[in-house]
Amino acid sequence: MENCIFCKIGKKEIPAKVIYEDKDHIAFLDIRPYTRGHTLVIPKKHYINFLDLPKSEVTELFGLAQEIAKKLKSAFRAQLIFLSVMGEEVPHTHVHLIPYYGVMPFERRADPSSEDLDGVLSQIKNYKGKD
Amino acid sequence: MENCIFCKIGKKEIPAKVIYEDKDHIAFLDIRPYTRGHTLVIPKKHYINFLDLPKSEVTELFGLAQEIAKKLKSAFRAQLIFLSVMGEEVPHTHVHLIPYYGVMPFERRADPSSEDLDGVLSQIKNYKGKD
Repeated sequence: MENCIFCKIGKKEIPAKVIYEDKDHIAFLDIRPYTRGHTLVIPKKHYINFLDLPKSEVTELFGLAQEIAKKLKSAFRAQLIFLSVMGEEVPHTHVHLIPYYGVMPFERRADPSSEDLDGVLSQIKNYKGKD
Repeated sequence: MENCIFCKIGKKEIPAKVIYEDKDHIAFLDIRPYTRGHTLVIPKKHYINFLDLPKSEVTELFGLAQEIAKKLKSAFRAQLIFLSVMGEEVPHTHVHLIPYYGVMPFERRADPSSEDLDGVLSQIKNYKGKD
């Protein structure tokens, strides 16, 4: 999809704070995070909605989301990681991983600076735990 | 887990509005639904948190959740199905499937009657579409 922002992130045509990448998937920080470490995991291929995914992709995407969620939980010492798929804002299916630190409801932070996000990114990148 | 309400639902020791069941999984209506058709999909085995699931179970659970989500979308003519895993209220991992009809934010309905839920259940059971 030519004008899809997430396709462009997958192709590295626009920058993102990438915490994981393989041939078919990329995970990056949400630029309007609900909480510190809020991450999106996407297939690089353009599927509009979760219901459009072939079963093999459901398997890969959620398996990967769980792996990344474990790492986020450890790196950020979160109580839980909330996972959600909504599919409203950007029409390219994406899994939200939202670290939970004991406070509800969530509110999105408006426009954290790139430096703020870099701090979050380095906390993940530098985490040396087992997950 | 002896006192886990979702384990008891899985073992049929307490009633639920069951929309799907197989050897290892059960899906049933949330008794405090955010929207009409709000469904929970669980493994019968007791895992407290999504992060505790073995990878094979992640695969099965989310593959099944997608299948049920497709059916809910069709049966209830929903715009989208939101999927989320939180893990707060009942410590037995469960996937929420929440039909979205164009209105946000969601609010839980307090205590719909059993008859209300039976109407929802029969709408799913009687749906004859392809999904």
